[in-house]
Amino acid sequence: MSTTVTDADIGRLLLHCPDRPGIVAAVSTFLTRAGANIVSLDQHSTEAEGGTFMQRTIFHLPGLSAALDGMNREFADTVAAEFDIDFRFTEAAKPKRVAIMASKTDHCLLDLLWRNRRGELDMSVVMVISNHPDLADQVRPFGVPFVHIPATRDIREQAEQRQLELLRGNVDLVVLARYMQIITPSFLSRVGAPMINIHHSFLPAFIGAAPYRQAKDRGVKLVGATAHYVTEVLDDGPIIEQDVVRVSHTHTVRDLVRLGADVERAVLSRAVLWHCEDRIVRHENQTIVFGRG
Amino acid sequence: MSTTVTDADIGRLLLHCPDRPGIVAAVSTFLTRAGANIVSLDQHSTEAEGGTFMQRTIFHLPGLSAALDGMNREFADTVAAEFDIDFRFTEAAKPKRVAIMASKTDHCLLDLLWRNRRGELDMSVVMVISNHPDLADQVRPFGVPFVHIPATRDIREQAEQRQLELLRGNVDLVVLARYMQIITPSFLSRVGAPMINIHHSFLPAFIGAAPYRQAKDRGVKLVGATAHYVTEVLDDGPIIEQDVVRVSHTHTVRDLVRLGADVERAVLSRAVLWHCEDRIVRHENQTIVFGRG
Amino acid sequence: MSTTVTDADIGRLLLHCPDRPGIVAAVSTFLTRAGANIVSLDQHSTEAEGGTFMQRTIFHLPGLSAALDGMNREFADTVAAEFDIDFRFTEAAKPKRVAIMASKTDHCLLDLLWRNRRGELDMSVVMVISNHPDLADQVRPFGVPFVHIPATRDIREQAEQRQLELLRGNVDLVVLARYMQIITPSFLSRVGAPMINIHHSFLPAFIGAAPYRQAKDRGVKLVGATAHYVTEVLDDGPIIEQDVVRVSHTHTVRDLVRLGADVERAVLSRAVLWHCEDRIVRHENQTIVFGRG
Amino acid sequence: MSTTVTDADIGRLLLHCPDRPGIVAAVSTFLTRAGANIVSLDQHSTEAEGGTFMQRTIFHLPGLSAALDGMNREFADTVAAEFDIDFRFTEAAKPKRVAIMASKTDHCLLDLLWRNRRGELDMSVVMVISNHPDLADQVRPFGVPFVHIPATRDIREQAEQRQLELLRGNVDLVVLARYMQIITPSFLSRVGAPMINIHHSFLPAFIGAAPYRQAKDRGVKLVGATAHYVTEVLDDGPIIEQDVVRVSHTHTVRDLVRLGADVERAVLSRAVLWHCEDRIVRHENQTIVFGRG
Repeated sequence: MSTTVTDADIGRLLLHCPDRPGIVAAVSTFLTRAGANIVSLDQHSTEAEGGTFMQRTIFHLPGLSAALDGMNREFADTVAAEFDIDFRFTEAAKPKRVAIMASKTDHCLLDLLWRNRRGELDMSVVMVISNHPDLADQVRPFGVPFVHIPATRDIREQAEQRQLELLRGNVDLVVLARYMQIITPSFLSRVGAPMINIHHSFLPAFIGAAPYRQAKDRGVKLVGATAHYVTEVLDDGPIIEQDVVRVSHTHTVRDLVRLGADVERAVLSRAVLWHCEDRIVRHENQTIVFGRG
Repeated sequence: MSTTVTDADIGRLLLHCPDRPGIVAAVSTFLTRAGANIVSLDQHSTEAEGGTFMQRTIFHLPGLSAALDGMNREFADTVAAEFDIDFRFTEAAKPKRVAIMASKTDHCLLDLLWRNRRGELDMSVVMVISNHPDLADQVRPFGVPFVHIPATRDIREQAEQRQLELLRGNVDLVVLARYMQIITPSFLSRVGAPMINIHHSFLPAFIGAAPYRQAKDRGVKLVGATAHYVTEVLDDGPIIEQDVVRVSHTHTVRDLVRLGADVERAVLSRAVLWHCEDRIVRHENQTIVFGRG
Repeated sequence: MSTTVTDADIGRLLLHCPDRPGIVAAVSTFLTRAGANIVSLDQHSTEAEGGTFMQRTIFHLPGLSAALDGMNREFADTVAAEFDIDFRFTEAAKPKRVAIMASKTDHCLLDLLWRNRRGELDMSVVMVISNHPDLADQVRPFGVPFVHIPATRDIREQAEQRQLELLRGNVDLVVLARYMQIITPSFLSRVGAPMINIHHSFLPAFIGAAPYRQAKDRGVKLVGATAHYVTEVLDDGPIIEQDVVRVSHTHTVRDLVRLGADVERAVLSRAVLWHCEDRIVRHENQTIVFGRG
Repeated sequence: MSTTVTDADIGRLLLHCPDRPGIVAAVSTFLTRAGANIVSLDQHSTEAEGGTFMQRTIFHLPGLSAALDGMNREFADTVAAEFDIDFRFTEAAKPKRVAIMASKTDHCLLDLLWRNRRGELDMSVVMVISNHPDLADQVRPFGVPFVHIPATRDIREQAEQRQLELLRGNVDLVVLARYMQIITPSFLSRVGAPMINIHHSFLPAFIGAAPYRQAKDRGVKLVGATAHYVTEVLDDGPIIEQDVVRVSHTHTVRDLVRLGADVERAVLSRAVLWHCEDRIVRHENQTIVFGRG
């Protein structure tokens, strides 16, 4: 069953808790008694015994919107209390409110805006924030507000302050679509929404400037990209998605950059799609992507 | 959680039935009451409403072997009766008994034997049947009986009769590892075990002899393979797995054959692996492959 | 060496002829004597002996534009005459003039326009022709003329007549970017430029309407696309590029359509890129793609 | 044209030199005058101007074996002297003499032996050297000598001495097929043949023990392998081939190890195939793989 159906009566329940017998039964019995039909159920345990249990359940419940507050309370008081469950109910019909941050390159930003216009992503892009004005003209046709907030090392604090004023409370997700400024731990702790980032990946990794030049000189046969949640450790948060493309000595540095951009936009789009579909559970420094594993 | 753990106490429950509310709850409650801990649960509905519901559940139950007969009876009388469920319990610790049928080419046969020797496949290869003696020497080091049963159009009936005498009741699965003789509907109906076949696949398809020569002349850029369950319609049963490899004008027909063999052995091995792990449910002319979708 | 360098002094020589000893020597000697430095040379013979020989040579020659007419004449009179060579010199600095024909879906069209704006494709899009007005707003920001020419079975002749008036003599390539009308042999013979088409591909192939629905019902594990030159045989011209993406039972028909669109735009973009870089030689019903094989 | 044709009269010429105009013409003219027909020619320049030029030429020359010594001398005295060319002529009909070194795991070793028996690789495996006796039984059916030379840190010098006595002068290539002992710079400088190694690759890289466990904990979505020439810098020689396979949270560490082994044997086999076909030129710390780029 698709979980991208944006039916007003489709709900999603994500939960995780210490693993022990009876959780699936308790949760599914709760939903059945509430009048819901389970459309899809995925679960994962980190260990055969004694690990963390995670579950994503998609259900159909006529009158979901009206019923959700009550279900939340009742689930908290009963099943969640008994099994020590962290959980969240969401409605498929309520798209995530997303802010996209970009700099000068357009490939990741435009791919997200274009997919969203096609109806591929369950999100509402509430604003694009950029530290450069360059992409304003390209964003405008999509009808999305473009906010230019200059940001350099010297004015980082003020820039982040302005960004936070726009973002806090207004977004469910921040996507860094090749935003080329450092995100401080302070910003991360205050923004109040998860952040997804994209970066190129090579085997082996290359440190420093001009990574595609280095990749060319090293003769790598694969060029890749990684989308991950942003944590305080730079480029080292939980990986959501990765992919690579084959390259050879016949590709110039310019070709590598072009192919790298293709992988980046594909990988980031998938990561955002899956996040918006509530498919992703974070566990320690990894992700579980339900239904796309 | 892995479902390949060959623990004596790991059970698998596969079921399908008309979709309606309450199935997941009923099944998981049954297992919990039986003392089982659900290790992994995958399900799929063919339609949002009114379709077919399928589920694969992996559970841990101390003393499984002894308890299984009772569980079978009780599940049939209660949950299965109520929801009109077709089901089957299996034990992860009991490898499938598999016969492999081959002709002259070794790539699919040897890859299965080699993977099995490494412990990658939950199967016990009880015999290799071939219509040619050529591969006997290669099978021998694996300690598997090799049975040569000549088979041509003229002696098909006698050949199938001999094959059936060996197979019936002795195997849980028959793998056609590039077995180049026709399987008759009569054989299929009497063999008493599912059969998996592998064949090459091209875009577009090529009819007739020398498909790699045709693919070369047509300048295809991909060469592929498809593993499927055998039905009465030749090469048209439910698809289990497919894959392709890139080729170009620099590849000779001989190169295409080599690359095609690589894809074939990889695709067939995955299909057999998934079958042996009870991951596959057949529904009409398609398959659902739980946990590898 | 890159062959996408749009240097005014970079030339390309594509040729094919009956294979016999001495061609490479004669051609390279000609270029060397003309003062050119060979930057890249790819060749291919269809058979070890007695087949067709094809070669793509990239060379650097100061003052190329001024020298080209003379080289053309001299090469024709000497090397080409001796070896019975069909050839064509092109300048890397002169982008191909391209018309894109589309209908209502935007993915292939926009991907080409966007890549072209980024400078990824050596082409100049001189017009977009559509049988529907729907995509006009999306094309406008790219600064490319959008021409709406209604076309149905009943008015096909008039529609093709209007299209030909726009295209003949004005374009080096016509790209069918999901243009959903039949192209008649008459149009093809009169348009005066090669045409590239894109279509979805499945294993097995599906005839008739709603191919993604059929693919879903058949449970295919791969969804693909094929870009090819248009010939009089529908969807059966020389294949330029193909690719696939993995799918599973967890994907809805809508997901398949989305993933299919991703493959289509990627495959079509690569085909157009390679054509514009003069990498492709057509031979019988196949293509040789130099440097990307 | 295939370059794997093991025709007695097929020769290969590999060369590299400082780039300047006229090389292709001079080389092809030399071959034509020698009576050879150029079957295939690939070349690569590291820079548009002033870089290194490399070329691989496959040619057909009746009576090649007898003619080769003379050609070698004449080419050295004329073309090579004029253009400062490093070159080597080889005969396609003379398979490379290869030694394979392994430890306890069989996947890379057996895949090479099996492909060689099928005639896929232009090599003659003259011996298998292992620091453990475990794989002797598996090597025996292939008719290849298995030599057990214990090797640990304490007896490294003696072990390498014994290995060198077997290898020096007897092999054209040494393949490390999961040989789990350190190769010393001294060994490398004395062995007198290039060495190819295979190792797993992850994004990001994992240092230390149990890399698949680390990859599992990190939640990587790709598992890969890299084949490279051995240099004094551990695991950092020129990359020949790389590939990856997708994994997810549903895969156990055991699954990752199995999938990693699949990628390793595929990548190593391709690297060895290409080396034996004289497709690979090393340049600084990278490789050019002609015809498979």
